[in-house]
Parts: sequence; structure tokens; C-alpha cells
Amino acid sequence: MRTVSLLQMDPKVGDLGGNAARLEGLLQQAAEAGGAVAVSTELAVCGYPPRDLLLESDFVDRALAAALEVTASVPALIGTPLPSASVRQRPGNGVVRVGRSSGSLTGQAEGQVVARKQLLPTYDVFDEARYFEPAHRTGLARSCGSMTFGVTVCEDVWQSAGQTPSTYQQDPVEHIAEWCRQGVDIDATVNLSASPYHSQKFHTRLLVARHVAAVLQHPFLLANQVGGNDDLLFDGRSLAVWPSGHAIVAPAWQEGVLTVNLDEPEQSTWTASNAEDALVHGEPILRHLAPDDDGSSLDGSLDDLAHAVITGLSDYCRKSGIASMVLGMSGGIDSAVAACVAAAAVGPEHVTGLAMPSRFSSEHSLSDAEHTAKALGMRYVVHPIDAMHRAVEGELGAVLDEGHAVAGENVQARLRGLTVMAYANANGSMAVTTGNKSEIAQGYCTLYGDMAGGYAPLADVYKMEVYALAEWFNQRATAEGRTPPVSPSTLAKPPSAELAPDQQDDQTLPPYAVLDEVLRAHIEGGMSADEMVASGMDETVVLDVLQRLERNEHKRWQMPPGPRVSSRAFGQGWRRPLASHHLWRSSQRPR
Amino acid sequence: MRTVSLLQMDPKVGDLGGNAARLEGLLQQAAEAGGAVAVSTELAVCGYPPRDLLLESDFVDRALAAALEVTASVPALIGTPLPSASVRQRPGNGVVRVGRSSGSLTGQAEGQVVARKQLLPTYDVFDEARYFEPAHRTGLARSCGSMTFGVTVCEDVWQSAGQTPSTYQQDPVEHIAEWCRQGVDIDATVNLSASPYHSQKFHTRLLVARHVAAVLQHPFLLANQVGGNDDLLFDGRSLAVWPSGHAIVAPAWQEGVLTVNLDEPEQSTWTASNAEDALVHGEPILRHLAPDDDGSSLDGSLDDLAHAVITGLSDYCRKSGIASMVLGMSGGIDSAVAACVAAAAVGPEHVTGLAMPSRFSSEHSLSDAEHTAKALGMRYVVHPIDAMHRAVEGELGAVLDEGHAVAGENVQARLRGLTVMAYANANGSMAVTTGNKSEIAQGYCTLYGDMAGGYAPLADVYKMEVYALAEWFNQRATAEGRTPPVSPSTLAKPPSAELAPDQQDDQTLPPYAVLDEVLRAHIEGGMSADEMVASGMDETVVLDVLQRLERNEHKRWQMPPGPRVSSRAFGQGWRRPLASHHLWRSSQRPR
Repeated sequence: MRTVSLLQMDPKVGDLGGNAARLEGLLQQAAEAGGAVAVSTELAVCGYPPRDLLLESDFVDRALAAALEVTASVPALIGTPLPSASVRQRPGNGVVRVGRSSGSLTGQAEGQVVARKQLLPTYDVFDEARYFEPAHRTGLARSCGSMTFGVTVCEDVWQSAGQTPSTYQQDPVEHIAEWCRQGVDIDATVNLSASPYHSQKFHTRLLVARHVAAVLQHPFLLANQVGGNDDLLFDGRSLAVWPSGHAIVAPAWQEGVLTVNLDEPEQSTWTASNAEDALVHGEPILRHLAPDDDGSSLDGSLDDLAHAVITGLSDYCRKSGIASMVLGMSGGIDSAVAACVAAAAVGPEHVTGLAMPSRFSSEHSLSDAEHTAKALGMRYVVHPIDAMHRAVEGELGAVLDEGHAVAGENVQARLRGLTVMAYANANGSMAVTTGNKSEIAQGYCTLYGDMAGGYAPLADVYKMEVYALAEWFNQRATAEGRTPPVSPSTLAKPPSAELAPDQQDDQTLPPYAVLDEVLRAHIEGGMSADEMVASGMDETVVLDVLQRLERNEHKRWQMPPGPRVSSRAFGQGWRRPLASHHLWRSSQRPR
Repeated sequence: MRTVSLLQMDPKVGDLGGNAARLEGLLQQAAEAGGAVAVSTELAVCGYPPRDLLLESDFVDRALAAALEVTASVPALIGTPLPSASVRQRPGNGVVRVGRSSGSLTGQAEGQVVARKQLLPTYDVFDEARYFEPAHRTGLARSCGSMTFGVTVCEDVWQSAGQTPSTYQQDPVEHIAEWCRQGVDIDATVNLSASPYHSQKFHTRLLVARHVAAVLQHPFLLANQVGGNDDLLFDGRSLAVWPSGHAIVAPAWQEGVLTVNLDEPEQSTWTASNAEDALVHGEPILRHLAPDDDGSSLDGSLDDLAHAVITGLSDYCRKSGIASMVLGMSGGIDSAVAACVAAAAVGPEHVTGLAMPSRFSSEHSLSDAEHTAKALGMRYVVHPIDAMHRAVEGELGAVLDEGHAVAGENVQARLRGLTVMAYANANGSMAVTTGNKSEIAQGYCTLYGDMAGGYAPLADVYKMEVYALAEWFNQRATAEGRTPPVSPSTLAKPPSAELAPDQQDDQTLPPYAVLDEVLRAHIEGGMSADEMVASGMDETVVLDVLQRLERNEHKRWQMPPGPRVSSRAFGQGWRRPLASHHLWRSSQRPR
């Protein structure tokens, strides 16, 4: 029977032993599910992206050794870095064949290198030309178990479909097509992937897969990494596509095995990982998509956004050995939703909320924060900052009185940051940063104050999406018979930093519905000011928003990592222009 | 007369108009110095490195337009990005010819593209494969004014000398050599460079230049960028080398014009930039190096280190529009030397030192800090943190008493960070971070505390080098008849963070002389623990140091930029492995 198990794995970057053990577990499950052959994700043995670990002496050798030593219950193709051919060459991003020879194997040595990645993406979140040597015409047709595969690695198949921002000199899909035309009988082309998530990504990935299956006229199978690695998220959704356009799609945000029956697609199965610490968010649904379904319904849902941010935080904590978290709770929407995410990620019993009222806090601040904490079942502690604030004013009063007003506002945010960090340091917890993408884009946040923390789960979520997430968490609680965690008052009150009397965000910023639209058009849509105005946006608003965006870029570089859910996130995915560039273009100093 | 002026320029990244005006000024000076032709540095019109500015709509078009519009008093070759050939291609890193046609010009259109960079470094601090399309066999022999040049851009000439970490498929120097063999008469090969500084770099650059001149058997001229761009420093030291090995070297850390007389090297001249805000550190000495002088005496001097860190800070401030700075002064060596650097960079009248004693501060703390501030002529203010500290303890006493002791120590550091930032915010100044490379490597510093600030001038300077810099500043002051700014007590006292009773650094860390040796062997030398122990280092010390290095990597990513002076600095020059990777490999949480 022609069955292929795709190992949708959630590796820990650099943990060669742990990843090998994970691979062995999934291979065992593949065998039990009837997979004749298994295929891992890209660089499964070291996790993606390994970045500068590849420069460490002997890391690549150890990774390859770990891959070759995997005990494979079925013959398998495993992604691993490959040692460079000489001192002045980079390593390869490759695939090895492991596992018991079956009777039909052609007697070739086990552990053989069967392919090397040919197209190295070097844009957006990718830096592969930095680390790898590109190969030429490899992995064209390789036997594994009783079948013959075209073997490709991630980007290798994207050029053919025209879905890369820049062109390459070669096209691996065309190479495989040539072999097919020459009469080589290929059962399927497989693709070992680590294709990062964003909320509009799936339909593009499906388009690429269908293009390849149509060009090659045999099934195309894509095994995709799942889970969060700092700011990079991988949604899984491993794929099998037939030349007819019929597709099956593995669940998102779950580790497991998709066993594809090449001849009877309906017989394909999903097996959830039985690893104790396996990632499990969302529904274990194996989807079939008809040829006329472009998959866009899988993109951009609120469900998906919620699972994405929860996965980002839960995987960061699990992979870092962080067992508990602490966050400031203001009674506002951001900290309420951040608390919901934290509770969903590691369990509410491991999350502490700190209310830190000052003389500028509204009366609802405490009751709303307490409502959320109680509804979620978190620990909740009140620590007023007023005495500390007075002591600072006693020492620095003249400085604060004579200078920019923002200095005094920042002092309050920093005393809260200091308090949250004191809790985190005292207890070995991680501080969670609660800011959203809209306010970070505008610099409406304080360095070393509310920006302090180890992870920022909402840093790539626009303010209006934060409100939507609040409704999502409330609805889920209601459906499960629990108290909705985000109070009506939190949802209804005008957003405020509460750092000055009667302060409200819209005294400084446009209404968030407007702000989000401008930011999205510019950041994700790449539109210039002229283009936005021509499309009907208010010119004054557009120019103000873009000026604040530019002026505050230096702050965004100092944000902790957070899950990337949009097509353009801040942080590591953007290569920074110089800090000084942004400062001289603006009129303000670092704050 | 065959004379070529190399424009050793200090561009501001992204400031197209400002850079074009700077080029025009230097071209005017070149004409006055008798240069028949002038050659700029790499990407002179936009500054190096432009990074993601290249992705902005129309930036490349505007840069090229600015380059072509330069009013050139002599015919010149100018470095500029070039528009991509198609939507799915990257821009080029190129060279255009501008300026009045002289009688001997061959009538070709002015403003013509004469070369595109062929080798794109993508390692260490370089990311060029990300931004540029590599060219093939361009710039082989081009006329400019009355001469014919081989035209290359920076990395283009490094492959030939074997001085790149990885190999390329082509060798532009060999291409030019082929043309010479075919009888083309080339006066000189020029290289438009932005070759970053580190303390051991010059002799390698000279080796490359001599190799090229020897291979091509005509003079080789390298125009190098000068100045600081955030963490990247460029030392200038533009070069002319003859096939005999004779070399002339322009001054470091100064903007100006090196006018090379190809036929009579001794007639070559250096003209300091007459721009009002031109970079001028170090001595305006034009050096001649005999063929047997390998230039290593120009590497690694204390003079050079001092000028490098001063240049980094002064250029950061000038390019960012920062007019004044504030820093915490503990009476210790780091803050004393940081104050010396700040005073040298922007003038002591623009620097404020804050002494922030606590109950754990030694009696010398205040007197030593005051000595330094007074000797330098800075503003000096005392703000005890004790009242604030007591208020925090009143609110968080139980948290601090029951948890890790470091939580309480961090509170003090963060109150100082808050105080420094309040000064900076109130006055529109920049906070200067005073930490050195040794303590940052070991995480012996506090996030949001002493790590707070906009620039970290000593972040790539080992502790023992900080002591050496202190002596350098003292000697300079003595030579100039001023009071040595670093007091004997500051130099003599055992290093201490002064966050707990009788605390000393060597209770946690090895003696700095030992620590620096281990760190240097590992970070710059790339030695593994085994190799260091085999070389005679103490195994316990080595393992402790490496464990602290790994455990605290997440802190280093949050350091502000600081000048890169060693062959391996922290920060942007290293591509981060994932934050979570470092946390799971260590036993500690973020602090």
C-alpha cells in the first residue's frame, strides 16, 4: 500500500537529543498508523531556525550524527544540517534516509544523504544564504522503502509557483519534471518544510502545493513544522495534494502524524502525538479540500489568531523551562487579554496578576482587574505604587517639574515595571509584557516600564483584534460554563494609560479603529502616505501616524519577542535600519 | 598628471541630501588638491549599511537620482544603490560616473553606471545577499576623466586574497587580470569600500590590497568609509598600494581626501574635510609603509581603541541629533571611563553625571565620582536612592525577603536606571550605559537597571582594557595640563556592584585578568572549553565562565548599541539563536 506519514513535529531548537527522541516517538506512531514511509519537517533534528548554532564548532556534525542514529520504525527521510565540504564552505540544509531496509530497498547504504536544499530564502524572517551552501539538482528521485520520491526542502518548490519575492537561477520542481518526462516513475514529491505562519499564509501555501502537483502530475506532500520558536510560529497544517487539486490538510497548532494514502485519499488519517508535552491547541480535524476550495477560509479566523498567540507563549515557556508568569493588570483590555492568553498557555494556577494602582488610576481599575483574575483562577495581588511614587517625587521633584511631562509619566510606568520584575526575580517567574501592536507602533509605551518582560504575546496583535480576542475568550468561557474573564466595564471603557489626570489614549492617538486601518495599510500593505491619502484616508491622520511610527522605531527593537501573526511583524523579522537613522529623522530623543 | 582623490567620507545612513552635499564638499576639496579624478566610498550617497531602507518604496530611485545630481568639481566614481531590473529582483550595489567631461573623455553619457558589486558578503556584520542582486563581470575597465580604471566594490577584491570566510563562484580581480593580459591599459584598480573596523583589521586589509596590486601589476586604491553608524565603526585609513608593496595610508577617524599621485607616491597628500561637523579624532598623519612593513603596528593600539570608542559615541550623537547626555557615576572605573568618553565625544559641558548612593555605597563612591566629574568639567548631581529604596521595601518587603536575593539587588539598580532615565526624559538627553564587555558577557548587570540607556560606549571593551583606557585619559589630561580625571582610588579599589554589604565582583566572577583571557579565547578565538583547558586554563573557571556566558545571552540582546572594536562583538553582529534556546540550556530565568 502506498502510504506516507508526514511527521508534523514541534522541535526545540538546538536540543538534538530531545528532537531525536521526539522523531522516534512520531516514527513509532507512523508505523502504528500504517505508514510505509515517513517524512520529517525541515531540519527536524535541530529545529528551525538554528541560526548561529550552525557556526558553533561541531554542532552540524553532532546534528547529523543524531539524525543518522534515529531508531526508525519505518524507513524515513529526516531533515538535518550537513557538514560543509571544506573549511571555506557553509553547511548544507539536507535530508538523510534512515530506518530498516525493507525487502524492496535497493541495498543502498542506510543513512545516505538524499537531498540538499537548493533555494535558500534570504528575505523577511529568513537568513539562509547566511548559513547554508545552496545545492544544484539534488534529490531528484530517491527510493525510500518501497517507493520513489522527488525530494525537496521548503523554498525549493516556491520558485516554480512564482511565490517568492526574488527569483532564483534554478527551479528544482522543473528538474523533477524533467526526470518524469524522461520516464522515471516517481510516486510522489515530498517537501520537508518549516513554513512560518501568518494569518494570511495558508491559501498561498496551498496554491504552491497545487501548482507543484499539477506541474509534476503526481501527488505532492508537504510536512510542516508546528509550534512556536520565540517570535516565529509554525502552524503545521501539513498537506497532501493530488494533481486533480484535491487536498487534505492536517490540523494546525498540534503535533502529530498525517498518514497519507496516495491511492485512496479518503483513507488518510491524523494521529495526535502521544508525547507527554506535545503541543495541542485547536481542533484535531483532518480537512479535505475540493479542487475549487482555495483554502482561504482557513486564513484569518479569530480561532486561529487565539490559538496562534497561545501557542507562541506556551511553547516559549515549555521550551525555556519557564513554569510561572507574572504580569501587571491595569483593568484595561490589553492586560485582561494577556492574562487570558497566559492562563490558557500554562494554566491559571501558574500566573500571578499584579494590580498597581496610583493616584491616577480609575475606580474601575482594581475591580476590573480583580474580576479577570478571579474568573480565570489566577493569583491576584494589589501593590499600590503611590508611596514609591511619592518617594521618587521627593527626590526628583525639581527634575520632573522642570522637564518634559512625559518624564513623570514614565516614572510611574517604570515603578510598575520594577514591581513586576521584583516579583519575577524573587520567584523565578517570567514577566509578561502586555502591549499591543497598535500602541507599540506609535511608541505609546514606556521603555523599561510596561515594555519590560520576557515575552510579549500581543505585540503583533492590533488593538481592535485585542478586543475581538477578549470576546473570543469570553465566549469560550461561557460555552464551558465559566465566568467570562473580560468584564463589560473593561470592554466598554475608553482606553487610557492612566498616567495623568483624565488621560485617554485618543487625546494622543486617533481612535484605534482608524489607527489600525492606517497601520495595516502601511505595514502589511506597504502603502506610502500618498497612496493612503489617495485611497481616502485623512491626510493629517496618516502623516501623524507615520511620523510617530518612524520616531519610535528604536523602542520596538527593545520589545521582548512575541508571536508573529501578521504578514509583517516588528522585531527580528525586520532587519533594523540604524537606530540613529530613526532618531535623526524624528525630532525626539529616546524615551 | 595621474592623480586620484579618494573621498574618505562619514555619511549619515539614509540622509541622501546631506550625503550628496558632503560629497560635493569633498569633491571641491579634491579639485583644490589637484585630483584629476575622485572615487567615493561604497554606497556613499546613502551611507553604509542602509539595510531595510532599501526595501522602502522609491528609496533606491531617490538615492540614484541624488548620486547623479552631485555637482562634481572633478570627474568622479560615486557609490550608490541601483534600481532592480524587475519586480522580483533585488537592487544592485553599484558605481556611477559623474562630473564634467574633460577633454579626454570618450563622449560617453555622464551619469553612467560603471560597475555593480559582484561578491556580496553575508556573514558576521554583513547581510548583503538579503538586499542586493550580485552582478557578473562588471566594472572591468572604465574610463573616468583621463584615466582608465578597474572598478570594484569592497568584498569584490577579498576573494582573490582568500580573506573571506566562505568562497564565491567568481573572482572579479581575476577578471580584471584577464583584461590586462588581453592588453587593456589600466591606470589603477579602485575599490569603493565600507570596510568595518575592529582592532586587528588593518593588517588584513593591507594584505588584501597588496595581493591585488601584485596580481594586477598596477596600483590599487581603496577609498574607505569613516565614522560610526550605531555599532558599526569604520576607521577610514583609505589606502593606495603599488605592485612593489609600497603603501600609503590615510589617517583613521577623520573625514578627508587622500589625493594619490600614481607616478610619484611621495607627492600624495591628505586634506582634512572642511565640513563644519566633520569627524576629527586622532592625528592627521599620512603614513608611508615600506613593502616589508605589514601594518600590524597600526592595529590594536590604545590610542586607536580610545579614538574608536569616542568616534562611536560622537557620531551616534551627531547623526541622531543628540546634544546632551546623562550617566550614572558610581565612583567605579566603568562609569569614570564612560564619562571621559562622553566628555570627549560631545564636550563636558553637555554631559551630566548623577551620583546615586545607597546604604551599600562605599565612602569613596561619592568623592571619586565627584573627582572625575570636576576634572572633566561636567555637571555633577547627587541623588541618593535611599528614600526610594525604603519606599519600595515598604511595599515589596515580603516579596523581596522571601525570594532570590538578586531581586533586591536588582531593585536598587532599577531605581538608578529610573533616576537616570527621568533626567534624560525631562531634559531631552540620552542616557549612556556604562557596562563593559566582561560584565555583560557574564550577565553581571541588571536589565532595565544599569543596562538602561541609548548607547553603550564600553560594551565591546573588556574590563582590563577599561583600566587601560583610564590610564590613557589620565595621561592625555596630564599632557594637556589638566587634572587626570580617573582618581587613584577609582583605579585601585576592588571592583564592586555595591548592591549588598561588602560585595565585590570577585565573589561572583574570576579576577578580571583571568576572566578577560577566557572570554577573549572563546569569543574572539572561537576556542571550545576543551581547547581552552588543553591550553592551560583552569577547567573550573572555564566551565563557570562559559555557563554564565550562555545563561545570560538574553540580556546581551537587550543592550543598546555600542561601538564594535573587537573581532567579535555582541549585538547586531551576531545573529541571535532563539532566546528560548539559551534559557532551556541554562538553569536560570530572565533577570
